Amino acid sequence: MDLIETLNAIVGAQHVLTSGDLSAYEQDWRKRWHGKALAVVRPATTQQVAEVVKACAAAKVSIVPQGGNTGMVVGSVPDASGQQVVLSLQRMNAVRQIDAGNMTVTVEAGCILQNLQDAAEKAGFLFPLSLAAEGSCTIGGNLGTNAGGTQVLRYGNARDLCLGLEVVNAQGDIWSGLSGLRKDNTGYDLRNLMIGSEGTLGIITAATMKLYPLPVASLTAWASLPSLAHAVQLLGLAQKHLASGLTGFEVMGQFALSLVAKHFPQQRVPLWDSAPFCVVLENSDFESEAHARERFDHLMEQALDAGVITDAVVAENLTQAKALWHIRECIPLAQAEEGLNIKHDISIPVSRIPEFVETTDALLKRAIPGVRLVNFGHLGDGNLHYNVQCPAGADGKAFLQAQEPGVNKLVFDSVLAHGGSISAEHGIGSLKRDELPHYKSAVALDMMRAVKSALDPLGILNPGRVL
Amino acid sequence: MDLIETLNAIVGAQHVLTSGDLSAYEQDWRKRWHGKALAVVRPATTQQVAEVVKACAAAKVSIVPQGGNTGMVVGSVPDASGQQVVLSLQRMNAVRQIDAGNMTVTVEAGCILQNLQDAAEKAGFLFPLSLAAEGSCTIGGNLGTNAGGTQVLRYGNARDLCLGLEVVNAQGDIWSGLSGLRKDNTGYDLRNLMIGSEGTLGIITAATMKLYPLPVASLTAWASLPSLAHAVQLLGLAQKHLASGLTGFEVMGQFALSLVAKHFPQQRVPLWDSAPFCVVLENSDFESEAHARERFDHLMEQALDAGVITDAVVAENLTQAKALWHIRECIPLAQAEEGLNIKHDISIPVSRIPEFVETTDALLKRAIPGVRLVNFGHLGDGNLHYNVQCPAGADGKAFLQAQEPGVNKLVFDSVLAHGGSISAEHGIGSLKRDELPHYKSAVALDMMRAVKSALDPLGILNPGRVL
Repeated sequence: MDLIETLNAIVGAQHVLTSGDLSAYEQDWRKRWHGKALAVVRPATTQQVAEVVKACAAAKVSIVPQGGNTGMVVGSVPDASGQQVVLSLQRMNAVRQIDAGNMTVTVEAGCILQNLQDAAEKAGFLFPLSLAAEGSCTIGGNLGTNAGGTQVLRYGNARDLCLGLEVVNAQGDIWSGLSGLRKDNTGYDLRNLMIGSEGTLGIITAATMKLYPLPVASLTAWASLPSLAHAVQLLGLAQKHLASGLTGFEVMGQFALSLVAKHFPQQRVPLWDSAPFCVVLENSDFESEAHARERFDHLMEQALDAGVITDAVVAENLTQAKALWHIRECIPLAQAEEGLNIKHDISIPVSRIPEFVETTDALLKRAIPGVRLVNFGHLGDGNLHYNVQCPAGADGKAFLQAQEPGVNKLVFDSVLAHGGSISAEHGIGSLKRDELPHYKSAVALDMMRAVKSALDPLGILNPGRVL
Repeated sequence: MDLIETLNAIVGAQHVLTSGDLSAYEQDWRKRWHGKALAVVRPATTQQVAEVVKACAAAKVSIVPQGGNTGMVVGSVPDASGQQVVLSLQRMNAVRQIDAGNMTVTVEAGCILQNLQDAAEKAGFLFPLSLAAEGSCTIGGNLGTNAGGTQVLRYGNARDLCLGLEVVNAQGDIWSGLSGLRKDNTGYDLRNLMIGSEGTLGIITAATMKLYPLPVASLTAWASLPSLAHAVQLLGLAQKHLASGLTGFEVMGQFALSLVAKHFPQQRVPLWDSAPFCVVLENSDFESEAHARERFDHLMEQALDAGVITDAVVAENLTQAKALWHIRECIPLAQAEEGLNIKHDISIPVSRIPEFVETTDALLKRAIPGVRLVNFGHLGDGNLHYNVQCPAGADGKAFLQAQEPGVNKLVFDSVLAHGGSISAEHGIGSLKRDELPHYKSAVALDMMRAVKSALDPLGILNPGRVL
């Protein structure tokens, strides 16, 4: 029996796709790559996933696990060979159990992030992972890539929210590690080894995740600052005064905001024209809105008195708060309106961000006269989206073609010199795989290769990714 | 040149101990085991650690890494062969750097936990890891065993506090992974693989750890409850009202408290004689003591009105708060005064703890008429120290000898049936190694063995521990 017949027998022929338009599975989200799959297999149970892996292993056919296929680094689509099986987890989308007393939820890998957020809220809890693709990304993909987003400052990455996993390993065996335990010291941390391994060490089929109390009130403030160094100071003040009430802290450079003001004039960006940087802060409170406002006002007064900020507004209501966050979220769109650009998802120790930006801006401006820098990101996590826009009026396509490799090298070299990471929250995938050896310790890479060979000796799980 | 001469050349002969009383290095903290080392080597730098490992690997001599040697599971002392090298990290005890803007501290493995707490506080920050042995345990040992303690509810285990590691691997290569980044998705999570591996995959020589703002006020309350189910309810209420202000939540059974009242009558245990369980709660506040008190009073009123607690006291001052915590901390001492007992460090999903305790108590009472159960622990983390005391008046030694294996089996089987862990915070070491295969998935154990062979093919790092 050939592999396709075996796969048909395991999951049913209607769930083994081999013809028709398979772009949704074969093309990456940013449309940088279109591969060709031998088949797209859509199992409905963990047992079926295990059988699919065993069948592929027997046939020495490699497997590309896939969730919502919204990744940024070409990590979940097949290569061009037509010889890889895409294993889509989308049919495994159940919220298996909410344990209110334990404040945990057990959910299948294919569950869409927003559905998980909704299910948690319906049960009276917060599931805090939140990111732009939440309407289509899946929790399995979030864990496979250790997704970040806007709430990391308070609640951590996907990794920090996970207590247990169910995984099908490269041998097709099921590891039932769906623990709801907050303490368990019985051997190596296989859970965190799987998380962030981008489907190269095992296939996550389900997870037990932490839930949190829902805040009573969330307020948003917007402040203008004389420099990035002042933004770092404000972060320290906010952490001291709001402690874990501080659930968001995003920084935006003046040029980034000018693009929003230019391309989306209806947005009414506050304070941007008089200051090189603005920040948007979120304060989540478990007491009352009045208390949240009192704490926020107190913080802003202190920051004004100390000269850390030059001006500030606190949103009066939810509509105003949403409008402020919308400005932040519109930066990538405004950038796209302005033309093509070179994107980076980097992290730097928070204390070194001002120095990194000053140095790197200067190097880029010297290398490319007229270059424009779109700088924004999750300052509270040290995560910048440090994007490089072509000089005004220049041809974006030609700019990208001529400059992208050199710009990446310049930025990544500077990241390395400042103790940073070339991929803060997006992962490595295929896109950054060849760059990784230049920016990661050789000792670490050797250990990673040893682990990969040990757990997947045939190399059938998502080959060519990460390593 | 023989190995000892080589070691002398690397670290200096005065730091290679081969004679005299070496009990401090050869005997475990609970005095269950006294081994014999070939030598105790005390390197002063990471480079020396690397050279020691290379020398031992060349000689095929195995290495037992050791910090403060305060572990509970016989994991950091040599075997009886006289052929193992104990590698003590105690001389590597520097706090290398505090980065206030990044809220991180980089510290060498041999730094004593309390010294790290003190250094953080001096710089205006909280380093939250806190446990009974903090005056002598080291941060390297805390990470090697993923230590827990009393603040896990809010700040997590040692694992959750660590951002980066410096490690000497089994080949004697140095992995410089001392990152201060809160986001870094560039490959497999080697950091968490090393943490909790009990020195069997690599030797942690330094770490970058998270710091937190210091609370402005910390208040302690004590409440009596009709049952463990009510304690779980109170935990939910406290998490809702205090959110991350809730930094401690310990439960204590009536018999456990009766032992404190009996053996330490000067302690004045409140409320214990009228209720089967008491809890002690800690509320850390970043605003003011008045605010902390108001929030605590509000919580206790709500809990009283809802019948969740029967009575409560909030400490009026620091002295009273310390006295309440001292009662909790005295339980193990009171237990020792009462006689020998069989200790367990287990975890259960919080929601299933009442059912676990009821079932297991009943099974034990049927198996051993008159048996007494000392039940206390970190309820907020699902971590119970579920200890079994011999019947009143019985011979403790004879009880232990006759009953320990049977009691362990009964308790661990019940833990397994309730989705729990046989080692919540103490690890496996040698003590629980033979039990692990009965209570851990065979698939997980196979993956652990594969990782061990891949990273330490000669098996020279702390052999016989964990696996």
